[in-house]
Amino acid sequence: MDPPHNDRLLRAAKGDRVDRPPVWVMRQAGRYLQEFKNVRKKYNFFHICQTPELASKVTLQPLKRFKLDAVIIFSDILVIPQALGMSVEMLPEVGPSFPRPLKIPGDLALLECDVDVDVALGYVYEAISLTCQKLEGRVPCIGFCGAPWTLMCYMIEGRGSQTVSGAKKWLYAYPKESHILLDILTNICIKFLVGQARAGARYLQVFDTLALHLGRDLFVKFAFPCLKKIAAKVKDELKQQDLDVPMCVFSKGTHHCLEMFEDTSYDVVGLDWTVEPAYALQKLPTKTLQGNLDPGALYSSKEDIEVLVKEMVAKFGGGKSKYIANLGHGVYPDCEPENMKAFVDAITAIV
Amino acid sequence: MDPPHNDRLLRAAKGDRVDRPPVWVMRQAGRYLQEFKNVRKKYNFFHICQTPELASKVTLQPLKRFKLDAVIIFSDILVIPQALGMSVEMLPEVGPSFPRPLKIPGDLALLECDVDVDVALGYVYEAISLTCQKLEGRVPCIGFCGAPWTLMCYMIEGRGSQTVSGAKKWLYAYPKESHILLDILTNICIKFLVGQARAGARYLQVFDTLALHLGRDLFVKFAFPCLKKIAAKVKDELKQQDLDVPMCVFSKGTHHCLEMFEDTSYDVVGLDWTVEPAYALQKLPTKTLQGNLDPGALYSSKEDIEVLVKEMVAKFGGGKSKYIANLGHGVYPDCEPENMKAFVDAITAIV
Repeated sequence: MDPPHNDRLLRAAKGDRVDRPPVWVMRQAGRYLQEFKNVRKKYNFFHICQTPELASKVTLQPLKRFKLDAVIIFSDILVIPQALGMSVEMLPEVGPSFPRPLKIPGDLALLECDVDVDVALGYVYEAISLTCQKLEGRVPCIGFCGAPWTLMCYMIEGRGSQTVSGAKKWLYAYPKESHILLDILTNICIKFLVGQARAGARYLQVFDTLALHLGRDLFVKFAFPCLKKIAAKVKDELKQQDLDVPMCVFSKGTHHCLEMFEDTSYDVVGLDWTVEPAYALQKLPTKTLQGNLDPGALYSSKEDIEVLVKEMVAKFGGGKSKYIANLGHGVYPDCEPENMKAFVDAITAIV
Repeated sequence: MDPPHNDRLLRAAKGDRVDRPPVWVMRQAGRYLQEFKNVRKKYNFFHICQTPELASKVTLQPLKRFKLDAVIIFSDILVIPQALGMSVEMLPEVGPSFPRPLKIPGDLALLECDVDVDVALGYVYEAISLTCQKLEGRVPCIGFCGAPWTLMCYMIEGRGSQTVSGAKKWLYAYPKESHILLDILTNICIKFLVGQARAGARYLQVFDTLALHLGRDLFVKFAFPCLKKIAAKVKDELKQQDLDVPMCVFSKGTHHCLEMFEDTSYDVVGLDWTVEPAYALQKLPTKTLQGNLDPGALYSSKEDIEVLVKEMVAKFGGGKSKYIANLGHGVYPDCEPENMKAFVDAITAIV
């Protein structure tokens, strides 16, 4: 793999000094863009994910509008449960929904654990390869997966939940079976991320969005070991293939144990907007930090967005090193693209 | 008001040494109890709230099962928006729902801001008085209200939301109107809490459950000033009436600025389970702390619940002073009452 012409993201991830903070945005391709909605009118959500031509098309859409330093492959964290044989639908208003979620530990027997991930999720690799071809090295393409705990939540809850109390019931009442499920998912995440890197992804992010529901004890016991193992194993396997791909963990709401990520192989720690940059800098002195503007801030006027971005970058030490600009979670569906542009422009204007 | 026979809660709130931690549980009356479900079969949710005989009956139900040190009046945080003229329904599966939420700042004109709170919410005072009569001083009755920011979220979102992005849009796009709405709600909260104390409530809690969606800057700018003013004003007004009622603030997810509550008139700070007790003890040295077992922990076996309770109390310094045992949020609807009993018993067994 030749380095992309714009390798700002990769250098910042590795801790190198850069001219200005690289910027990309979680969910930068998607529902807030009319050109995406036009594609969605014709095809259902998972059909787009599963069709490399469509997925790569949608992946590249935001690059035409905004001066982004990366694209992130258009896909969904729930492709892993799908690969395990679970049916997932995208329902209007509701979001992703599992007609038959896991109800009792015995349901684990229904999972197709012997799946060949590289076959089942080969469409994601193809979408990444195709995207890289189309990019012609302009910017790197980001690969990703959902973290085991977050996937477990969806597989048990069956849809978004305010408390994920069903999944937490497993942790408290069926700890052994929870570990079995988390192990299955961890191993699949490892293979899937390695496959994405081999297909051309230059940066890999693990999304543990639902970690926010866990207190420190449960996070340390169940979720964190999976995250740690994923980074260690993916790095190991990529090294054997002479690939060096920075990795980022976005573990939402885990302010209570940020320091634990120091002792992992992740290069980058993504932060949500409830974490103060000064606190994160103190807890994670060796890591590159990514984030963390409140997605709601994009409801502000363009002038206010510029001020908020400047404040954020200043709080992260000016952004010349070990910092990647992003929101603190995915962009909201009703975000005005013009305001997204104001966000990206405010970063790229930094000298 | 004579002190209740069991004033453990009030003494712990004031920082006095007690024989063991007082215990009560958020949502201790409600959906997880069959005797409550039996009442709900006959009456709709808000009819129960609005009928003092029913509200007091439901309030006292958990006291028959568990060795609790307080009851909390059965009511809902949304009685304040109702008093302002907004219609609220309790929908199965969905929860509270506003058929006509606030959509644009102009909708503020529709609120009945000149409402006489003591008349409109007099049914809550009557429910408290009746409950106190029936209690015959056994344990104190807790009064409460929703915090202005949390109420604003419901009034704009119209129902539970994963992001409260609609309400956050107001903060970013309409800051002036947001302050107007928050001021209206703050003043009502003050009157309502004073009225509840006059009716016999011996402990007052303010629930800012949706504060978890705010980063530090927004919390400090919008939500915190309301919370601070409420405690200061309620304490002032009660003092003039020779009433001394401890106050507790439960501001979920505000780990990033716990220390700010030191400089408020609250006696007690309620914590959710993502806050480590050691961290809270360091940030809030003068306050009594309340909480913070993960409600999900009640899915554990009774033996495990006992272990988890002991660990929690130990983390809070043993619980002989400045500590009130509780969950870190409301008990879940599918909690086994036997497990709730195991939680309460584990506290009351502490010597």
